[in-house]
Amino acid sequence: MTSRIEVGKKILSANDELAIQIKSKLDESHVFGINIMASPGAGKTTFILKTLEALKGRLNFGVVEGDIASSIDSDKAKAAGIPAIQINTGGECHLDAVMLGGALNSMDLTALDLLIVENVGNLVCPINFKIGTHKNVLIASIPEGDDKPYKYPGAYRGVEVLIISKIDLLPYVPFDMEYFRKGVEILNPGLITFVISAKSGEGMDLWADWLCDTVSSWKESRM
Amino acid sequence: MTSRIEVGKKILSANDELAIQIKSKLDESHVFGINIMASPGAGKTTFILKTLEALKGRLNFGVVEGDIASSIDSDKAKAAGIPAIQINTGGECHLDAVMLGGALNSMDLTALDLLIVENVGNLVCPINFKIGTHKNVLIASIPEGDDKPYKYPGAYRGVEVLIISKIDLLPYVPFDMEYFRKGVEILNPGLITFVISAKSGEGMDLWADWLCDTVSSWKESRM
Repeated sequence: MTSRIEVGKKILSANDELAIQIKSKLDESHVFGINIMASPGAGKTTFILKTLEALKGRLNFGVVEGDIASSIDSDKAKAAGIPAIQINTGGECHLDAVMLGGALNSMDLTALDLLIVENVGNLVCPINFKIGTHKNVLIASIPEGDDKPYKYPGAYRGVEVLIISKIDLLPYVPFDMEYFRKGVEILNPGLITFVISAKSGEGMDLWADWLCDTVSSWKESRM
Repeated sequence: MTSRIEVGKKILSANDELAIQIKSKLDESHVFGINIMASPGAGKTTFILKTLEALKGRLNFGVVEGDIASSIDSDKAKAAGIPAIQINTGGECHLDAVMLGGALNSMDLTALDLLIVENVGNLVCPINFKIGTHKNVLIASIPEGDDKPYKYPGAYRGVEVLIISKIDLLPYVPFDMEYFRKGVEILNPGLITFVISAKSGEGMDLWADWLCDTVSSWKESRM
């Protein structure tokens, strides 16, 4: 039992070290990185594409798409004219710093202000693996239900921004917003939260403005 | 790299051995076990409660609820008068045979015909851990989107039954059923599939009848 814990610690440390190197590389290239996590089907890809549409002309961006299999997500991004790299984890339930490091080797960071990484759809594992980005963003979609903070506390504790998505489905599913937000507040008090519908566009401007301001302030603070 | 693979293999084997013991225990007690897997928020708990409502008076059943944290699901089952045990994995992304074995120690199997295990909400990890049940059931909910078989092939390959849930949301979300089912057919040809809405009750009778027949046939075959 003891040796098992030690092995786990060593693997995490090696990943963390590489994550620090990735952050340095992003810093040196003046690229702000965000790591987007969510359950499968919470709407990560659509949210990212709509975000980048709203940021067009304001920031230069690139996308790294993480999936177990397929190039569906990077194909969508490329079709929208966005520089995108697909990582297929081949069964792994999360992205790690090794995978992101490899992907960044084939991306021209000097051309970017913002790098959006879409993690594997999984509400448990990705949060345990640092990948060197500057902010963790969690998307929680309305049809997933209002009890998710209580059932998956790790995901809600480990992020700096929460996006409540698919708000357009609120009339059709049972979802007690007060109960949901109470659960979030216990785990992550004062968490920056945006309520959006990628379908109708509701709330996307507030999020895009916030992201734009955050990247600008970060860049200024580093000059 | 080699030693890492070997360690993984040993852990899986130990789990598999215990899963075989659990299956023997279920067999000896004449209890048919099913392992229900899905993304977070696909509607596993509601589906299970509605299933058991439809089976009332036809089968004696018990439920084991797996979650990272909270007793929300087992509380719901108990409130519906169903014998239920909660497993909190404390961070683990899946149930394993050790956890289920422990839970079964505090359950009177002789009183049951059917044991339903609700795994942790995760479309990647649970399928890799046998727990000794007789059938694996995957729930895919409409709002998750039609591309999930292509992105999470392991989950679709490793099950004997597929439930397409939340069909009542079809008018409100983009979902190409033909594309989805084509993806499933490639991975798992002829997979037994039920299309349901736990909300409206649509399709629940067909599923409940099939489950009842399956348990009866299995019991007869073992006499």
